[in-house]
Amino acid sequence: MGRLRGIVSPQALPAQGPRGAIDDLGLPLQLQAATSTSLQKLLSQPSSFRNAHVLSVKQYSRADLHLLFTVAQELRLGVQREGVLNILSGRVLCNLFYEPSTRTSASFDAAMQRLGGRTINIDTSQSSVKKGESLQDTLRTLACYGDAVVLRHPDENSVNVAEKYCPVPVVNGGNGSKEHPTQAFLDLFTIREELGTVQGLTITFLGDLLYGRPVHSLVYLLQHYQVQVQLVAPKGLELPAQVREQLVASGQLLCESETLTPEILARSDVLYCTRVQRERFDSDEKYQQVKNSYRVDNATLKSAKSSTVVLHPLPRNEEVAEEVDFDQRAAYFRQMRYGLYCRMALLALVMASS
Amino acid sequence: MGRLRGIVSPQALPAQGPRGAIDDLGLPLQLQAATSTSLQKLLSQPSSFRNAHVLSVKQYSRADLHLLFTVAQELRLGVQREGVLNILSGRVLCNLFYEPSTRTSASFDAAMQRLGGRTINIDTSQSSVKKGESLQDTLRTLACYGDAVVLRHPDENSVNVAEKYCPVPVVNGGNGSKEHPTQAFLDLFTIREELGTVQGLTITFLGDLLYGRPVHSLVYLLQHYQVQVQLVAPKGLELPAQVREQLVASGQLLCESETLTPEILARSDVLYCTRVQRERFDSDEKYQQVKNSYRVDNATLKSAKSSTVVLHPLPRNEEVAEEVDFDQRAAYFRQMRYGLYCRMALLALVMASS
Amino acid sequence: MGRLRGIVSPQALPAQGPRGAIDDLGLPLQLQAATSTSLQKLLSQPSSFRNAHVLSVKQYSRADLHLLFTVAQELRLGVQREGVLNILSGRVLCNLFYEPSTRTSASFDAAMQRLGGRTINIDTSQSSVKKGESLQDTLRTLACYGDAVVLRHPDENSVNVAEKYCPVPVVNGGNGSKEHPTQAFLDLFTIREELGTVQGLTITFLGDLLYGRPVHSLVYLLQHYQVQVQLVAPKGLELPAQVREQLVASGQLLCESETLTPEILARSDVLYCTRVQRERFDSDEKYQQVKNSYRVDNATLKSAKSSTVVLHPLPRNEEVAEEVDFDQRAAYFRQMRYGLYCRMALLALVMASS
Repeated sequence: MGRLRGIVSPQALPAQGPRGAIDDLGLPLQLQAATSTSLQKLLSQPSSFRNAHVLSVKQYSRADLHLLFTVAQELRLGVQREGVLNILSGRVLCNLFYEPSTRTSASFDAAMQRLGGRTINIDTSQSSVKKGESLQDTLRTLACYGDAVVLRHPDENSVNVAEKYCPVPVVNGGNGSKEHPTQAFLDLFTIREELGTVQGLTITFLGDLLYGRPVHSLVYLLQHYQVQVQLVAPKGLELPAQVREQLVASGQLLCESETLTPEILARSDVLYCTRVQRERFDSDEKYQQVKNSYRVDNATLKSAKSSTVVLHPLPRNEEVAEEVDFDQRAAYFRQMRYGLYCRMALLALVMASS
Repeated sequence: MGRLRGIVSPQALPAQGPRGAIDDLGLPLQLQAATSTSLQKLLSQPSSFRNAHVLSVKQYSRADLHLLFTVAQELRLGVQREGVLNILSGRVLCNLFYEPSTRTSASFDAAMQRLGGRTINIDTSQSSVKKGESLQDTLRTLACYGDAVVLRHPDENSVNVAEKYCPVPVVNGGNGSKEHPTQAFLDLFTIREELGTVQGLTITFLGDLLYGRPVHSLVYLLQHYQVQVQLVAPKGLELPAQVREQLVASGQLLCESETLTPEILARSDVLYCTRVQRERFDSDEKYQQVKNSYRVDNATLKSAKSSTVVLHPLPRNEEVAEEVDFDQRAAYFRQMRYGLYCRMALLALVMASS
Repeated sequence: MGRLRGIVSPQALPAQGPRGAIDDLGLPLQLQAATSTSLQKLLSQPSSFRNAHVLSVKQYSRADLHLLFTVAQELRLGVQREGVLNILSGRVLCNLFYEPSTRTSASFDAAMQRLGGRTINIDTSQSSVKKGESLQDTLRTLACYGDAVVLRHPDENSVNVAEKYCPVPVVNGGNGSKEHPTQAFLDLFTIREELGTVQGLTITFLGDLLYGRPVHSLVYLLQHYQVQVQLVAPKGLELPAQVREQLVASGQLLCESETLTPEILARSDVLYCTRVQRERFDSDEKYQQVKNSYRVDNATLKSAKSSTVVLHPLPRNEEVAEEVDFDQRAAYFRQMRYGLYCRMALLALVMASS
C-alpha cells in the first residue's frame, strides 16, 4: 500500500522554484501577496453580492456572474497553493438545514473554512423548532451569532421569510422544489472552466426535467449567454411550460426529444444528466423502461465528441454508469470541486468587508 | 433585492477615519492594541472564574458579576470591530448536550469561536452513552480532548457528577429544571446594557413562574442589587415558595397579581415574559384563557413607559405577539446578542491563561 | 466551590521563568521556535504515512511506529505548551462516521483542531446515503472538500472501496469487527509512555478476546517487539485461532487461562481489559458468572506490581470497578490523552507538506 499518486488535492503544492524560500503554507511570499492584492481588489469593489441575501438566480446579471466566476478562479488558485486562505478570518457562518443534504452542507462548511472563517452547524433534529419556534425567530437568533446564514428549507416560502426578517445575509441552499441558486452557479462555472467559455455551446439536458430543480435555475442563467439547448425527457417529465417558454423566447431551444439519439449527443458540448427517481412514475414497469433508456454508459458516449463534458448534480443512482467515471469527459466529480470554489467566491463576496 | 441596510451585525465596521490605515480585520492597529491591553488586564487578574466550574449562580458575588459584565462589554466592542478575536486561540471547548437546545449550543459555539477558540460538538444521539457509558466517564474522556466542557443534562444531579469527576472546568448549560446560570447572567447583562444600571429598577416577571427556570436564577442574582420585583402568574403557576421567600427576606417583593394590570406595567422598567406551555394546565379551556390573558401585544404595551424593556428567554410561542417585535422596547432579540457577549466573557474568564 | 487543582490540562503552562516574556500562547518565543524546527524535520522526511491511506496496522514497520511515537511525543509537549499548534493550518479533515463513536470522532476532531487544522463532520443520519449514494461516490465528493477523510464504517470491505476510489488519504477509524488501527497505535504509545519502553514487557489480555478488535490489532503490532503475552478469556471467547497462531509463531505466547490468577497478574506489566458484553453469551447466568470473575477491582490489583498499568479501550461497563479509577495504576483515562497525541501525530504525518 504505497502513497497516493496523481491526486489533484486542494493543497497540491507548486514545484519549488529556484527562489527557494517557501513559507509555512508552502507558498512563496511574493505570490501570496500578489494573489491577496488581486483578490482584495475584486472583493472590495461594490457588487450585487455585498452584504445582500442570495435567494434566487434571478437577482444576477451577466456582469455579476462574471465577477463571481473571476473570484472563484482566484480562490481556486489560492486554495491550491495555501489550502486555507485568510479572507473571512473574522466571520462566522451559520448553516441551518431543515432538510438533509450532506453535499450542500459539507460544501458550504468547507468553503467557509477554506476562506479562514468559522462555521456553526445547526442540527434541526435537535433544534428549538421542536418547541414550536418560527423560522423567522430562529433566523433572528442566528443573526445574533453569525454574520450570514445558509438556509435549506423544504418550504418555497422560506426565502420570503428570510428576506423579510433576517438582519444578516441569507444564502438560499435550496427552498423546496423551487430554487437552489448556488447549484446553478457551480454548474455554469464548471462549464466555463471545463470548456473555456459558455458562449456558443450546445447544452443537452437529460432525464427528469420536470422536477429537476438544478435544470430550471441553470436554464434561467443560460439566458445571459449565446447557447443552444436540447431537451431529452420521458413523456410526463418534460421541462415545465414556463421554463420551456423562456428558452423559446430567447431563441435557445434547439430540439426536444424523448430519446437521446446519437445525433443529439453528437451536437452536445455539455450533457447534463439528472436523477430519475422511481417515485415520479405510475408503474414500476414504466420506471424500469425509462431508467434504462436514460442510462449513460461507455456505449452511449461513443456518439459524443471527445470534448463533451458530462455533468450531474449528484448524488446519482444508476443514470450514469460507474464505468463512465474513468472517462475524462465525466466532469461530475470535478463539478463538486468547482462547487467549492464557487461557494467560496459567493461567501467572500457577500461577507468581505470593503 | 438590494443590499441589507441598517443591520447591526457583529462585524459592523467603524467609519474609516482620517488615519486611513485599516488592517485585514478592518481595525486600526492602535485600537486593536488598546483593546487587547485592557482586556488582557481584566482576564489576567485572579477571579472566581479562572479555571473553575460554573455550576450555579450561587457561586458568584456582585463583584464577580461586575467583572463578568465589564469583560462582556469589552468583548462586545472587540467583536463589533474585529468579528473574531484572538483570546482563546489555543483552547478547545467541548459542547456536550444531552438535551436539544439550538439556542444555547449555537450560542456557546459562536462565543468560543468568536474568541478565536475551537469547538467540538458532541451529538449524544451518536454517543457512547448508548453503550452504557456513565456521565463521569464521558466527562473524563472529553477532558482529555478539550480545555473545558459545556454540559446540558436533564438530570439535576449532573452538576455534582461534573464537580466530582471532571478535571477541566464544566459550564452548566442547564441541569434539568434546576439551573441555567448563563441565562441568568445574560438576562442581567441585558438589563444593565439596555437601561444603564440595574440599581433602582422595578422588574416584573410574567407568566409561568413555577417552572420558569430562568426566572428563579435571575431572582437569586437580583439579590445583589437594589430592585423591586412584581410577580404576575396564573393560579397554580406562582413562583415556588422558597424562591418567593428570598424576595420577601430581601425586601424586594413589591406586589403579586394574577393579572398584568396597567398599574403594574406602568411601574415596570423591565417586563420579563416567559413561555406558557399547554402541558402545565389541566384543561385546554384553562390554558386558552390564561394564554390570552398573558399575551403581550401592542395594546398591552400602551400602559408601559417608553423606556421599559421587554425580555423573553426565547423560544417564544404566542405569549409575545409578533407585532411587538417592531417596538423598540422589545429587547428579546438584542438579548440573544448580549448572550453571545456574556458567554464569551465567561469562557474567556474561565479559560484565559494568566 | 474553588478553582480546580491538580489538573493536568492540555494547556498547562510552564512555570514562568526569569526570562519573563511570554507571548499570547503562553510560550517563550525561543521554545516555540525550537519545537517547530524539531517537528518540522520529523514531518518533512519521507515516510510510509505521507499522503497515504492508513487502513491496517499491517502496513507499518517498527521504524514507522518509532517515527509515529516520536512525533506524538513532540506534539504532546507542544500541546502542553501552546494548546493549539500551527502545523496543519492549511488543511481540512472530513470525519465520515457511518456508526456512532463519540470517542473516536471527538478524538480525531480534537486532534485535527489542536494541529491548527479544520474539521468537517458528516452526520450520516443526515447524509445523501439516504438517497442511495454509494460509499465511493460519497468519498469522492468529500475528497473535493477536504484533504483527508477519517472513515468509520460497519462493513469490513469499506477500506477496500476507500483504497480504490478515494483520491485523498483515508484513515480507517474502524471497519466493522476487522480493524481499528489508530486504537492499536494509541495502546502501544500508552504502554511506551507509561513504562518507558515496550521491550521486555509481559502483557496480559483479559476478557472477551474473540470479538475484541483492539486486542487483535495490538497483538499484531506487538510482533515488532520482544514481549510476552498472557491470554485470559472465558471459554468460547478465546483469541481467534489465526491471531493466536501469530503469537505462537513469534514465540510470544507465555500462557493461557480461563481465570486471572494472582500468578498471572503478578507477572503482568500491562493488564489490558476489554468489555464483556451480554450479547456474547447464551444465558444470562453464564454472563453474570463470567462478568463477575473478570471484574477488576482493588482486591484484584493487590496481586499486581506497583508498576503495572491497567488499560481499557473504553467505554467500560462493569469490568473495571470505579474504585480502581483512583489507583495510579489505572491508565485508561490517560490512555485517552495519549490517543489524542497519537492521532495528532498520524494526521500530521499524513497531511504535512514536505
